[in-house]
Amino acid sequence: MPKKRTAAVEGEAMSGQLYKSDEIKREVLGRLKKVGVEIVEALSRGDWPTLHLPVRSTKNIVYDQDLRQYILGSKKAERTVANIRHLRPFAQLVWVAKFAKQLLTSGKTSTLRDTYYVAIGEGIDFESQDESDDIILEVESLINHPREDMNIFPEERAAIYGDLVIEYTIPGFRGQRVDLSAHPDGYSIGPALTTAEFGRCGAEQVFVIEKGAVFSRFVEERADKKFKALLIHTAGQSPRNCRKLIRRLREELNLPVYIFTDADPYGVHIASVLIHGSALSAHIRQINVPDAVWAGVYATDITKYKLPALRLTEQDYKRLKELEQDPRYTVDPWRREVQYFGKIKRKAELEAFSRYGLEFIVKDFLPERLTELQKR
Amino acid sequence: MPKKRTAAVEGEAMSGQLYKSDEIKREVLGRLKKVGVEIVEALSRGDWPTLHLPVRSTKNIVYDQDLRQYILGSKKAERTVANIRHLRPFAQLVWVAKFAKQLLTSGKTSTLRDTYYVAIGEGIDFESQDESDDIILEVESLINHPREDMNIFPEERAAIYGDLVIEYTIPGFRGQRVDLSAHPDGYSIGPALTTAEFGRCGAEQVFVIEKGAVFSRFVEERADKKFKALLIHTAGQSPRNCRKLIRRLREELNLPVYIFTDADPYGVHIASVLIHGSALSAHIRQINVPDAVWAGVYATDITKYKLPALRLTEQDYKRLKELEQDPRYTVDPWRREVQYFGKIKRKAELEAFSRYGLEFIVKDFLPERLTELQKR
Repeated sequence: MPKKRTAAVEGEAMSGQLYKSDEIKREVLGRLKKVGVEIVEALSRGDWPTLHLPVRSTKNIVYDQDLRQYILGSKKAERTVANIRHLRPFAQLVWVAKFAKQLLTSGKTSTLRDTYYVAIGEGIDFESQDESDDIILEVESLINHPREDMNIFPEERAAIYGDLVIEYTIPGFRGQRVDLSAHPDGYSIGPALTTAEFGRCGAEQVFVIEKGAVFSRFVEERADKKFKALLIHTAGQSPRNCRKLIRRLREELNLPVYIFTDADPYGVHIASVLIHGSALSAHIRQINVPDAVWAGVYATDITKYKLPALRLTEQDYKRLKELEQDPRYTVDPWRREVQYFGKIKRKAELEAFSRYGLEFIVKDFLPERLTELQKR
Repeated sequence: MPKKRTAAVEGEAMSGQLYKSDEIKREVLGRLKKVGVEIVEALSRGDWPTLHLPVRSTKNIVYDQDLRQYILGSKKAERTVANIRHLRPFAQLVWVAKFAKQLLTSGKTSTLRDTYYVAIGEGIDFESQDESDDIILEVESLINHPREDMNIFPEERAAIYGDLVIEYTIPGFRGQRVDLSAHPDGYSIGPALTTAEFGRCGAEQVFVIEKGAVFSRFVEERADKKFKALLIHTAGQSPRNCRKLIRRLREELNLPVYIFTDADPYGVHIASVLIHGSALSAHIRQINVPDAVWAGVYATDITKYKLPALRLTEQDYKRLKELEQDPRYTVDPWRREVQYFGKIKRKAELEAFSRYGLEFIVKDFLPERLTELQKR
């Protein structure tokens, strides 16, 4: 699974292996160092240190056909110590970069919130967590790596279950393996799982499910065995590290990915963000899964399967209006389904299939839908 | 760990063991049957079938000193087929009892939501999920078992990590064991973990933590090893099956339980519900943990540790007013802390300790607090 050790980096002492996560760590440390070196060199030359940050406004977002995700355009904004109004965010950015380096070299992890409090403790003047969150986004855009690669992880926890062995790369657990099919309630996806290497995999596809209860239903009806599938539940909008993990399962293990959400505007958006990336994350690459397939529940399924449905709320209509404007929704199934919601004025939950009994969703709906999608 | 098999019940075919969860299942099936038998007997006698349901209003809640939790008083309400207005909820209740029996005998699980949809599919006239949720509460009060004992589980997922081996009792996994110290991101607490038997345990106490990020911090700083502790995160208000699991760890393994929440009115309430039970659950026993100790973060810790704090919101003040009226808050530390919030008008998060570095909460705060609490 991992390559042979080629050189030593900190935190690897326990193991002779060099993992992919070690390579990422090196690359991030290299990019952070480059930022620092440029600042120091400018100072030695007697110049004002200046950074060029990609502009993260929606006006600077373009769709990249090769990457199949939205990325930032070429517009850059200058942040220079020569401008007194830039001095504060400049210093804040340097501190975040320093903190990221500390996390990586000590092998510790943090969250957006923890980072804010550590900054406060070190006398960095952030007015609120919003401000430190924004500076962290700037560092992401500067080094073109998601914050997870700087060991800053989300608070939310998704979970996974299925026939896959992983090998940890984090300090204290390096080289240890776990079989993800032993605990049927699922394994939380935190820093250890996100950075693990993949070992033996008996699964042939991935089912991503919006809800914990439906994930449990899939486990109970043995969808993992019947369909040789890894099961992941995202607990609503997928946390970023979970999106990254799904992308790795697609790329490294070549597994097709199917996404199951509620048939409502929010569920559509959960699937879309997983596939196309979010506008908020256009400044970083590779936490979306362009090949993933939204497998329902579609608005049209409400009619097709006569699902018990609820009236759309004011908020749902507002959300639909926004989706209609969004360039990601100009092709089917997105366009078709968004229009159909407007037509039937109803929404339905994944659990609504239980009107045909608890087994129906795995025994009937799932094979039908997979056959339909594979015919396309 | 489990007792020798004494007799066969359905779903046990795979294993020769008789587990505690099998005993609970038998007891629940017995009580459900009793409800049915009484109805059938009344009909055979030519009487109107009548049920006597405990009244679940706040006026019928009393504190039981022996059980150390709020329980329902002796008031009962009659529900009889003789009254045409009772006919609908009577039929709904009988359906829920039948569905619970099906779940237990087939070894399947459900959620409140799934139960609603199955009912709709079988032509049971529930106007909304609120109505079916309420009938499920009635069945709980009638048989004096939480719905988890009828295989109806919450949607939410807490997680656990630490030096404990469990043995599953659910179909398909009966007799299989897992060591909960192998996956550092934590094991989701779903139906399988809730009903598992406890095997070898190296832990000597339990730390219950409100937040996933702080749980990860505890794992990363090896609080599990340094304090021989099982770590549980509740993801906010603890799901009921997680409360039950904590109670089992207390009772069956005799482990002291410490609860860590944010220092805000919501955090106080999370701790209180775990310890005293919730008013909503007064109709069932044994999902609270009377011996558990709230270990902070206290309002007084904001001053003591000079924690970065936020202003209380309007909603926080409203919540504090409610807590002041609540009989559970008439003794310290509850009374003292609720008063102190009002005095300093500030709240703080668990992560606020990170102002002293990421290690502080485990390295400094935790041993200080445990020493204080053990002196009491």
